[in-house]
Amino acid sequence: MKKVFIFDESEFNKDLLGSKGANLVSMKKKGLPIPNGVVISTEACREYFSTGKFIGQNLRQEIFGELKKLEIETGKNFSGEETPLLVSVRSGAPISMPGMMDTILNLGLNDEVVETLIRKTKKNRFVYNIYIRFIEMFGEIVKNIEKKKFNDIKILKNYNNLKTKEEYKEIVKLYKELYKKETKNDFPEDPLEQILLAVDAIFNSWNTDRARYYRKLNDISDKIGTGVVIQEMVFGNYNEFSGTGVAFTRNPSTGEKEIFGEYLLEAQGEDIVAGIRTPLPLSTLEKKLPEVYKEFLNICNELEKTYKNMQDIEFTIENKKLFILQTRNGKRSPEASIKIAVDLVEEGIITKEEAIVMIEPNMISKILNGNFDEKDKIDRTAIGKGIPGSAGVAVGKVALCTGDIKGQEDWILVRMETSPEDIKGMNLAKGIVTIKGGATSHGAVVARGMGKCCITGCEDIKINEKGKYFTLNGAKIKTGDIISIDGYTGDIYLGSIKLKRPQLGDNLKKIMQWCNNYKTLEVRMNADTPKDVKVGKSLGAKGVGLCRTEHMFFEEEKIWNIREMIISSNLEERNRALSKLLILQKKDFYDIMKVLDGDALNIRLLDPPFHEFLPKTVKDIEKLANNMGLLKEEVQVRINNLKEENPMIGHRGCRLAITFPEIYDMQSRAIIESAIRCKEEGIAVDLEIMVPFIGGISEFKYIKKNILQEIEKVFKEKNERINYKLGTMMELPRACLIANEIAEESDFFSFGTNDLTQTTYGISRDDSINFIEHYKEKDIIKRDPFQSIDTRGVGKLLILATQLGREVKKGIKIGVCGEHGGDAKSIEFFDKLDINYVSCSPYRVPIAIVAAARSAIINREEKESKKNKLKKLKLKI
Amino acid sequence: MKKVFIFDESEFNKDLLGSKGANLVSMKKKGLPIPNGVVISTEACREYFSTGKFIGQNLRQEIFGELKKLEIETGKNFSGEETPLLVSVRSGAPISMPGMMDTILNLGLNDEVVETLIRKTKKNRFVYNIYIRFIEMFGEIVKNIEKKKFNDIKILKNYNNLKTKEEYKEIVKLYKELYKKETKNDFPEDPLEQILLAVDAIFNSWNTDRARYYRKLNDISDKIGTGVVIQEMVFGNYNEFSGTGVAFTRNPSTGEKEIFGEYLLEAQGEDIVAGIRTPLPLSTLEKKLPEVYKEFLNICNELEKTYKNMQDIEFTIENKKLFILQTRNGKRSPEASIKIAVDLVEEGIITKEEAIVMIEPNMISKILNGNFDEKDKIDRTAIGKGIPGSAGVAVGKVALCTGDIKGQEDWILVRMETSPEDIKGMNLAKGIVTIKGGATSHGAVVARGMGKCCITGCEDIKINEKGKYFTLNGAKIKTGDIISIDGYTGDIYLGSIKLKRPQLGDNLKKIMQWCNNYKTLEVRMNADTPKDVKVGKSLGAKGVGLCRTEHMFFEEEKIWNIREMIISSNLEERNRALSKLLILQKKDFYDIMKVLDGDALNIRLLDPPFHEFLPKTVKDIEKLANNMGLLKEEVQVRINNLKEENPMIGHRGCRLAITFPEIYDMQSRAIIESAIRCKEEGIAVDLEIMVPFIGGISEFKYIKKNILQEIEKVFKEKNERINYKLGTMMELPRACLIANEIAEESDFFSFGTNDLTQTTYGISRDDSINFIEHYKEKDIIKRDPFQSIDTRGVGKLLILATQLGREVKKGIKIGVCGEHGGDAKSIEFFDKLDINYVSCSPYRVPIAIVAAARSAIINREEKESKKNKLKKLKLKI
Repeated sequence: MKKVFIFDESEFNKDLLGSKGANLVSMKKKGLPIPNGVVISTEACREYFSTGKFIGQNLRQEIFGELKKLEIETGKNFSGEETPLLVSVRSGAPISMPGMMDTILNLGLNDEVVETLIRKTKKNRFVYNIYIRFIEMFGEIVKNIEKKKFNDIKILKNYNNLKTKEEYKEIVKLYKELYKKETKNDFPEDPLEQILLAVDAIFNSWNTDRARYYRKLNDISDKIGTGVVIQEMVFGNYNEFSGTGVAFTRNPSTGEKEIFGEYLLEAQGEDIVAGIRTPLPLSTLEKKLPEVYKEFLNICNELEKTYKNMQDIEFTIENKKLFILQTRNGKRSPEASIKIAVDLVEEGIITKEEAIVMIEPNMISKILNGNFDEKDKIDRTAIGKGIPGSAGVAVGKVALCTGDIKGQEDWILVRMETSPEDIKGMNLAKGIVTIKGGATSHGAVVARGMGKCCITGCEDIKINEKGKYFTLNGAKIKTGDIISIDGYTGDIYLGSIKLKRPQLGDNLKKIMQWCNNYKTLEVRMNADTPKDVKVGKSLGAKGVGLCRTEHMFFEEEKIWNIREMIISSNLEERNRALSKLLILQKKDFYDIMKVLDGDALNIRLLDPPFHEFLPKTVKDIEKLANNMGLLKEEVQVRINNLKEENPMIGHRGCRLAITFPEIYDMQSRAIIESAIRCKEEGIAVDLEIMVPFIGGISEFKYIKKNILQEIEKVFKEKNERINYKLGTMMELPRACLIANEIAEESDFFSFGTNDLTQTTYGISRDDSINFIEHYKEKDIIKRDPFQSIDTRGVGKLLILATQLGREVKKGIKIGVCGEHGGDAKSIEFFDKLDINYVSCSPYRVPIAIVAAARSAIINREEKESKKNKLKKLKLKI
Repeated sequence: MKKVFIFDESEFNKDLLGSKGANLVSMKKKGLPIPNGVVISTEACREYFSTGKFIGQNLRQEIFGELKKLEIETGKNFSGEETPLLVSVRSGAPISMPGMMDTILNLGLNDEVVETLIRKTKKNRFVYNIYIRFIEMFGEIVKNIEKKKFNDIKILKNYNNLKTKEEYKEIVKLYKELYKKETKNDFPEDPLEQILLAVDAIFNSWNTDRARYYRKLNDISDKIGTGVVIQEMVFGNYNEFSGTGVAFTRNPSTGEKEIFGEYLLEAQGEDIVAGIRTPLPLSTLEKKLPEVYKEFLNICNELEKTYKNMQDIEFTIENKKLFILQTRNGKRSPEASIKIAVDLVEEGIITKEEAIVMIEPNMISKILNGNFDEKDKIDRTAIGKGIPGSAGVAVGKVALCTGDIKGQEDWILVRMETSPEDIKGMNLAKGIVTIKGGATSHGAVVARGMGKCCITGCEDIKINEKGKYFTLNGAKIKTGDIISIDGYTGDIYLGSIKLKRPQLGDNLKKIMQWCNNYKTLEVRMNADTPKDVKVGKSLGAKGVGLCRTEHMFFEEEKIWNIREMIISSNLEERNRALSKLLILQKKDFYDIMKVLDGDALNIRLLDPPFHEFLPKTVKDIEKLANNMGLLKEEVQVRINNLKEENPMIGHRGCRLAITFPEIYDMQSRAIIESAIRCKEEGIAVDLEIMVPFIGGISEFKYIKKNILQEIEKVFKEKNERINYKLGTMMELPRACLIANEIAEESDFFSFGTNDLTQTTYGISRDDSINFIEHYKEKDIIKRDPFQSIDTRGVGKLLILATQLGREVKKGIKIGVCGEHGGDAKSIEFFDKLDINYVSCSPYRVPIAIVAAARSAIINREEKESKKNKLKKLKLKI
């Protein structure tokens, strides 16, 4: 099998040639002005490793053979005679990979060639400049010699002011002596030897720790290998009509259709990167070299059409002749990404499907959550750093408790950690900072749900409650002082940084519409209030996948009633409190149903352990005691009795309704009475009632029986009936394992992947802060399973439950309502399961829509074949 | 299909005839003296229910047809003429079922038949006696008329002193009037109608709430149905040479081979049960009716040989003629059970396999744990009741803390709840009572491990620490007062009840030897000290399946070192504490290895969350601060920082070794150095090192690498190597789901079914006390999943993990080390999985051995076929 190819004789094949090589080959085929060259395939790299890191005789002969062709085609040669052939050597894997060896320029130079070139060009300075660059690059990149050591020589010999050939020669001599000292070898004078050494070094760079680590992080196989591109040099530093530059075919910040780039005359590529000379904006090239500029614009259009994307191009001009050295898809801001995708469709360059696939869903959160104005941020130094908890940025006055938040100003709530009692404060604040907790702590989760910026785990903050201030790495920040926080990075700044305001522009709306036509997954929202529901609806959500009844309880008036209910020591006391709650809950549900206006509404019955609702301060305990006509000591005792060792796996969810069936009775009544009221008023309701934390079938049957009884009672009282579904939240491993039994009784499954991840891993999210960072540091956990679904473990339970459930009830409705419902990677997995919907916080709905559409498009074929496979793989255990 | 059979024409078939009917048929075939009769099959019962609870024409005709045969065979008839045929009607399901309808005697009587009988027997009193009994029984059992209403009539009419026929007639008249009043129907005079009504009532009794509940509890299908036996009456009250009695073929308390029973002359069966007349010991029958007695002894032997078990026999003598009415396997005490099984083998009646199957494994715990002397207990009333936590009984002085326990006396430790700090006290005490916690709480688990009696969750106890007493339902019990506690029932008594001492007699030893030859599962012990290991070994354990290193830490000297290690704020402090622990652990391991002398030793590395080890009292905190040269405030802060929200799923198990690898390094070193010392001393060691709480493969690889490094270091230092296995505890759902990945790296799996049950159910054992009782009350949980493995949920994970693991590593060693390893029902499940061993607390080892042997014998065939099936059912998800 052939492993080395001259561009002209090859075909576009990324896997074989690497993406750089493949692009060059295809540009060459299109007749674009690119210097000719030779590409060594990834297969050669794989062989290199499998045969003990050795460039064998065959490969060597192949390389030399193709280079011979290059000599013939260019009319130049490596012999040092009349027209010397100089080349660049670069790595190029099939997937872009930082951490690998970069470019070496000017290979082929040696003392003899230098003389020839001077003779031909009469340019002492140019020729020695590229020679010295070459030795330095080669020594540095191929042989790992410290750059500083070369620089020391330059400084010693006053390089920038050299005049004579002898002076340059002296540098070359010293460079070669350095090379010999460091490598114990003479500097290779033979151009072919130079090339082989460079190829060897590139192959080796495939396996550096850094490259391997990058691949591990990005799930790239170690077996792919890299290609190597050997390409004829062109010289941007040849004369005043020469230059080099980089350009984007569109503005990468705004997405506007305009060539965007910069260049330097009389320079080689690395001069732009080095930043010693300031490059010029590309537009000025029109005046200086109008023909070249015109040609370049044409090529840009051509490349966009070829690669169907905005391009990031490297070019060189050698004596008025334009050469394209590299092209690739350009990185861009979130906003630009959306605009470019839409424009490319409208220009007829790509299809809508291709536009959707082009968009990285998580990027959308950046558009929605806003960001700092980079210019205003650039000179500032953060005073501290926490864990990025929820994307976005915020500027406001510091509040240390909900009570601090007053008036119409913007506030940032800074807390040791947040609890459900802080919901109000979090709702009022623009952003949240906590000292404890990780990216999946209460604060972060709630903040993401609210679409609010949040930083967690900023352990350097020391709060002084009495003094009403906190300190952070020496700075003392008082209540009311202004800070700026960055939820993307975790940085905290003193003072106010200007904001770039979020916009859900027309382009994004267009993308959404397209997505809705392609996705097969429904996207619902997790929303607990009419306000949330409105936001989610405006962002494209089709109904509510999770309405947490308990969140309604945290509002001032209701919390006291639920506390009374919990603290009740007998049925009579409890029913008294429940009857008050009934009235309030009915209003809650009615308001939400009204906003939804016929969209699906999935209401989860009470879930959290009681203790979460209880007062913590002496004052509040006294108030509760007064409300209930009890001694505060008695209330305290009852509160203590409700404390649990492991509340997360304690008395919660439907277990509360086994001990106190009257709670779900009340909630079911409130739901049904609200729905009947809606029916009477002509408002459509598509209702699902969901029982949380189900672990066994008898448990669900018992609760179902009670709820059905209560609902039938309401129907009788009101002399009216409505349709509803009654189903289970699947959030315990056992529920998944007996999903067939549950499907017999349940109208739907909704996977609560947060809790399911907790129990499957046996990891308490609240406590994982104590060790999860060590897991990340030591590379034991690559991706936080609470952010992106763990497909190998938790995912298996989902597959199992879905299969078992459908075996019993073929069309059973299945959704996901955990945090993962808003995570793009997870959505792809859910999409493959062919479930009905995902549900996520309102602000993540657009992300979910794009992710669902992308998955539908990308995996269309795979899904078809998998569907057929799944039918055969019926699970039997 | 025929559904009614006269005894002579039928075959022994329990499923079809019920066990009573089948036994009668087989006795009849053997020529034993049993009254002839007819049996209605369970199939008829099933049809009765499937056709709307109706005895159809066909069944009716069949019954009449077979009864006609009975008339012919007996030479009697239902017509009321010369020789009337009287019968009994009884229910008889294939499985013995309390809660179902019992016997009705004397059917066939009516006014006409009574006259005939009087004419024939000249016995007014006898005939009216059976007539009156019949009406009463029929009314009561078939028609649910209150017994009291019949009794009122008897009292009114002075029944016991009646003389004349007219007087009797008057009673009959009043009885029939009562019957009519209660049922709106005349009392049925037609014998065949009497029989049909009785059959109908028996069928109906199959579906009473009580019967259904019993079947649910015992996993008996509702679909089986009951048979009905209609049998010719014989009369034990016919004359002075008549009588009735019950007998066991062996002594049911001791198992001695001696006829054991009692009888009454001139009586019907129910008179013995009623207890109005005192029955005579059966031995006295030899004098009174020597021929009958001799015949009875012969029949007893015959029946034992037929049914291969000790028999419980009902018999009647009618005018010197012996009739056997029923025989069944007799209930017996645990001790008798063992002796009878051994004796039957030695008498050549049964095989060893049959003997093993005859033994209910859980019974053995009763022998091992001892019990009260029933005679001394009988008149006492318990002053309170908790949950039976650990079997056995104990008598001793009350201690409210470990410090109370002094001298050589027996103590009962009474605590709010127990923590690992109470281990010493629990070890010293004879029994334990806790106020909090269920049957699976720390106290109960540890107590079972120690083979000690324990009562948990006795919430009525109020401890007064200062006053050094507690109250319980009004009683005040001071430290040092004597109480008696019953771990079988949860009862607590004042004062001292005499004990029946436990014995592991020669018979049990024989059974064990036999079991060892049949079982395929190895039985190991969970043991942490040389003392435990000795006990387990003496009870038959082959090696240690779980040695919990942390239990060693709770001894006085060590706890302070581990506390220092935990509280350390840097590596240096920690290493200092670890180096002290190293010396102590080495001794621990060496001592255990020595006792084991080559038997397998599986050592689990540190598992519990740090907080469990920390001091709680101010005094201890001060001591720790002093030891470490820290301020006590600093120590308190560090202790607080280690508190967790959900410690059970927090920073524990191998997660500790991710953050502090030096801990497992120390433990691995201690283990290996001890093993090398043993090798040098010529002591064999079969070593397994086990990493707890593994959830991911990278986690295990990281830890494995560290441990292997440390072990290699030790090998080098000592210039010696030993063999060992390194494996994982499988106790998280995720570990089971990725068992294939884990099997690649792990030498063995050991299922920690306690934690696996906790996480699969999402139930914290510590907190389940708050709701689990409600689950039991409401019949939602039938069997505590922490006692008996949940085969439908947790069991599926075990099946999955076993399959996945074996796919990768065919012969991977698999064991169970959770509590379930000592539970008979669970062992049967594990045995079917074909794993290598179970491990349980030393005192449960004999139970496990018997259970394993029984399972091997009972399931031999099923296992063979299943094995073949499993091969085809490879799991793919």
